[in-house]
Amino acid sequence: MSNVAQKQESSIKDYIVGVTLQAAAVRAEIAAASTEIKNQALKFIADEILNSSTILKQQNQLDLEAGKKRGLDSALLDRLELTDARIDAMVEGLMQVCTLDDPVGQTTDMQTRPSGIQVGKMRVPIGVILIIYESRPNVTADAAALCIKSGNVTILRGGSEALHSNQAIAKCIHAGLDKAGLSKDIVQVITTADREAVTELLHADDYIDIVIPRGGKSLIEKIMQESRIPLIKHLDGVCHVYIHEEADIDMATKIAFNSKAQRFGVCNAMETLLVDKNIAKQVLPGLQKKFAEKNIELRGCELTREFLNDIAEASEQDWYEEYLGPVLAIKIVDGVSQAMQHIEKYGSHHTDTIVTNNQDIAQQFLREVDSSSVMINASTRFADGFEYGLGAEIGISTDKLHARGPVGLEGLTTQKFIVLGDGNIRE
Amino acid sequence: MSNVAQKQESSIKDYIVGVTLQAAAVRAEIAAASTEIKNQALKFIADEILNSSTILKQQNQLDLEAGKKRGLDSALLDRLELTDARIDAMVEGLMQVCTLDDPVGQTTDMQTRPSGIQVGKMRVPIGVILIIYESRPNVTADAAALCIKSGNVTILRGGSEALHSNQAIAKCIHAGLDKAGLSKDIVQVITTADREAVTELLHADDYIDIVIPRGGKSLIEKIMQESRIPLIKHLDGVCHVYIHEEADIDMATKIAFNSKAQRFGVCNAMETLLVDKNIAKQVLPGLQKKFAEKNIELRGCELTREFLNDIAEASEQDWYEEYLGPVLAIKIVDGVSQAMQHIEKYGSHHTDTIVTNNQDIAQQFLREVDSSSVMINASTRFADGFEYGLGAEIGISTDKLHARGPVGLEGLTTQKFIVLGDGNIRE
Repeated sequence: MSNVAQKQESSIKDYIVGVTLQAAAVRAEIAAASTEIKNQALKFIADEILNSSTILKQQNQLDLEAGKKRGLDSALLDRLELTDARIDAMVEGLMQVCTLDDPVGQTTDMQTRPSGIQVGKMRVPIGVILIIYESRPNVTADAAALCIKSGNVTILRGGSEALHSNQAIAKCIHAGLDKAGLSKDIVQVITTADREAVTELLHADDYIDIVIPRGGKSLIEKIMQESRIPLIKHLDGVCHVYIHEEADIDMATKIAFNSKAQRFGVCNAMETLLVDKNIAKQVLPGLQKKFAEKNIELRGCELTREFLNDIAEASEQDWYEEYLGPVLAIKIVDGVSQAMQHIEKYGSHHTDTIVTNNQDIAQQFLREVDSSSVMINASTRFADGFEYGLGAEIGISTDKLHARGPVGLEGLTTQKFIVLGDGNIRE
Repeated sequence: MSNVAQKQESSIKDYIVGVTLQAAAVRAEIAAASTEIKNQALKFIADEILNSSTILKQQNQLDLEAGKKRGLDSALLDRLELTDARIDAMVEGLMQVCTLDDPVGQTTDMQTRPSGIQVGKMRVPIGVILIIYESRPNVTADAAALCIKSGNVTILRGGSEALHSNQAIAKCIHAGLDKAGLSKDIVQVITTADREAVTELLHADDYIDIVIPRGGKSLIEKIMQESRIPLIKHLDGVCHVYIHEEADIDMATKIAFNSKAQRFGVCNAMETLLVDKNIAKQVLPGLQKKFAEKNIELRGCELTREFLNDIAEASEQDWYEEYLGPVLAIKIVDGVSQAMQHIEKYGSHHTDTIVTNNQDIAQQFLREVDSSSVMINASTRFADGFEYGLGAEIGISTDKLHARGPVGLEGLTTQKFIVLGDGNIRE
């Protein structure tokens, strides 16, 4: 390693040590902050963003120009752009988090024990949360809002392509926190694009309690490999709709079509359709027409191709695939057990739905499918924090520990046991 | 590596691959098992253990003799011994888990959303749980019972010194599962004492969902270093009692004495006493007398030594120390903030209690102390699954994610979102 590289690396290390120590120093402050103060901070931040829209767009322009020079594709550049509508949406997002109930300090399950002590649980912040994300600068404001409201310290590391935009938003956040009488270090936005900073952060397991990676699969896999800190994450959304033999044909068609075609590039879109062999003939041809109208390519198992003309054969790899686009794999199955076996083997434990009028089968599917969201007679597209009433989400977790499914304010908190006595001792 | 060693290692690797594949194969079976079947299995296992007491004691004798030859100390040998009373306790433990409510399938928080879908959460098993423990063979039965009842597959790896005892108990578990019509592989007890098996298990993150290490700190630290799988664990129990200036002297004395002296070698015993400077003179001399009766050595800060004669000075290291014995560190603090700062810096986030009649201060302590159990006017010794009404515990967690504090059946489960629709699609 050259001297220059060595020096650079050690200065990044020093920078990250500073960031984590500053985070630790304000942990107790935001954890103890009242709901009123936290809401005030969110409103002040919203005001700052609204009043800074010209600066935000100027700074964003720098990122866009650099992105074009670096040859970023148009989809990425689109996600990177801060328009007036997107700035308004950030402001609305902040105000919406204000209206959500504060989970911190909520007590549940209080009971008096034979010893005389009262025992229950109190909801408390997790501590310090690191969020690593790509391109969209609005995440900076959205994630900060959820973390402030849930009493957590946040370290935000956005994509290098959005560095100027994120720093401009950070200024608004700091000004808002400051106006509310809170320390600016409660939200820190990493100021370097150097990848080494991420590595240092992912090893700071003494100071950071949880990492939330948001972005493409390769980003998340890299973080999984590197991190010594637990993650809240999902990798894939290989979601299934299973049409049971006792399904209503219209309902099944509507749900399958909506799950696939309402939006393609989202993690809760259906990627594989499972159809019971006894209903395939009634339901598949109608669906093929509807999918054709949206130019959706179908790939089927051998049996599927007996029911439908002109469709390609699905390979083994297709069953694992998250297309995130206008392609759908279709498989004929023989009964709910075979459907569940397919989901267990090829699925990603994200969201799976059954369409049936048989209540026993529906309940079996609901109970036995091991995914973060399991549905009866509803579109997979509902798997979303807002649709579930969480208000806003920081992401979706397909892990089993801690938060699972869409993660909102509650998922950003944990619980501790509390014991209230009047001098009780153990005999 | 010699050829023999290489061959041995590869055969252990094959063995563990087999164990994890067998675990995966029965995961859905125990997850879907009814409460009735699970309780039947527990009763059959209890019967088998009761009827096998002669064999259990014979096999245990082999472990005891080998242990004596290996020069195990008397405390370890005592923990290893299976007496009639301990066999009865295992049976009682199994029967007690029968009486606990089954958490699996419980639904909560159901609400109807504007879209018409009903959303809520269902409690479900985690999946495959690896438990690594030392000497006490009764853990084999206790842990198996909790995992069966919570619908999980278990892989148990006891200490090498208890190999014969654990295999004998495993036979009873398998016979009981079989009688209830369940697969034996739902509980697997590792049959080799080779440390390589643990390493292989800790890397099987595709098959094992969680590891629960039970034992000394060095065992747990080793597992932390090696594991690619999340742990439910605690390392230390550096528990504090803080006597606030507005405490009742009698109550404070009783609670401090009970927290330290009721039992020494337990993780929820007090290790450091924090005393407000304005109450030190009234409370410390009386406590010194009581501690002296139990031969408890006191080590104090400089100020403490002005109030008490003949006590050693506490070093910086003393504040971090989990004595697990008749030693207590005492520090004088100036107010609740200083007490909380001490707890944050030196504590282990296990259990901390305040003694005070000031409700505002008590609530501040309750809310702001970042430990798995926080108490007002009660002995730290209450931090225990049975005392909290969990029925039985698999351990205590000082981690923040997933389970925190004493971990019972609920901590061995997770939740998934469930959505009930009648054909709802997303607009």
